[in-house]
Amino acid sequence: MNLIYRNAEEGDLSKLIEMLADDQLGADREDSSTPVNQAYIDALKVISDDPNNELIVAERSENSETYIIGMLQLTYIPYLTYKGSWRCLIEGVRVHKDHRSKGYGKQLFEWSIKRAKVRGCNIVQLTSNKQRSDAIRFYNDLGFKASHEGFKLMIED
Amino acid sequence: MNLIYRNAEEGDLSKLIEMLADDQLGADREDSSTPVNQAYIDALKVISDDPNNELIVAERSENSETYIIGMLQLTYIPYLTYKGSWRCLIEGVRVHKDHRSKGYGKQLFEWSIKRAKVRGCNIVQLTSNKQRSDAIRFYNDLGFKASHEGFKLMIED
Repeated sequence: MNLIYRNAEEGDLSKLIEMLADDQLGADREDSSTPVNQAYIDALKVISDDPNNELIVAERSENSETYIIGMLQLTYIPYLTYKGSWRCLIEGVRVHKDHRSKGYGKQLFEWSIKRAKVRGCNIVQLTSNKQRSDAIRFYNDLGFKASHEGFKLMIED
Repeated sequence: MNLIYRNAEEGDLSKLIEMLADDQLGADREDSSTPVNQAYIDALKVISDDPNNELIVAERSENSETYIIGMLQLTYIPYLTYKGSWRCLIEGVRVHKDHRSKGYGKQLFEWSIKRAKVRGCNIVQLTSNKQRSDAIRFYNDLGFKASHEGFKLMIED
């Protein structure tokens, strides 16, 4: 069950949006109509052009067919702290609904932690909604410590 | 008590490191020796060269003297979610020990939220150590919601 990891491309967008829209929260805020909303194409270009952001897709090949298993975004952030250091923020992790409960989530995170190390990071961080108790157990099992409160503020237009 | 906000410069580093080292956690991990450790100079250059990171110092002028009140770092992160959106991460907020309990922290955050809006962000986020109950109350009062767990993983060398 080895996965292939690569940067997301425009041709992936409809599948990625499908994953982002695949829960109540996502369904309300995303636009999964076709053709793909230009706003997503523009956003992907901004992410791809930023050397400190990587929107990653994980694929699996089977019987000469390749399909997307999941996605996530890594952001590498330089700080003064720790005598100058890099930190990796993981966001937007999704495993496609057809491929859940097969251990892919764990593989995605293990790969991400290795990738953060290659990029010279000494901390990996993420936030997880407190209502998602399964996710919270999952991150604890991976060795993450819920040492912090994760605060969000929506900015009004 | 109007503050002046600007990007940090190399000449600020000794003062900034002093602020970062000013608690038990910081004292253990920072190097406040003089001259300034080259690693901080290099890190500041990396941050300054990244258009999506701003290391901000807040100053006050009084009796023709200007002094640094506080610091913080803003990271602007592009995402696919919300039909393509920007989020602002706030980290490394410090108010100098000589200037605490005067409302400067609130001013720093109000400025940061405005700045995030100017940069087109629709969410501002931060994490705060659960042991810092004063800080947590402060963020709640500013309108932040502690909806998420903030997970950290230290990467071993």
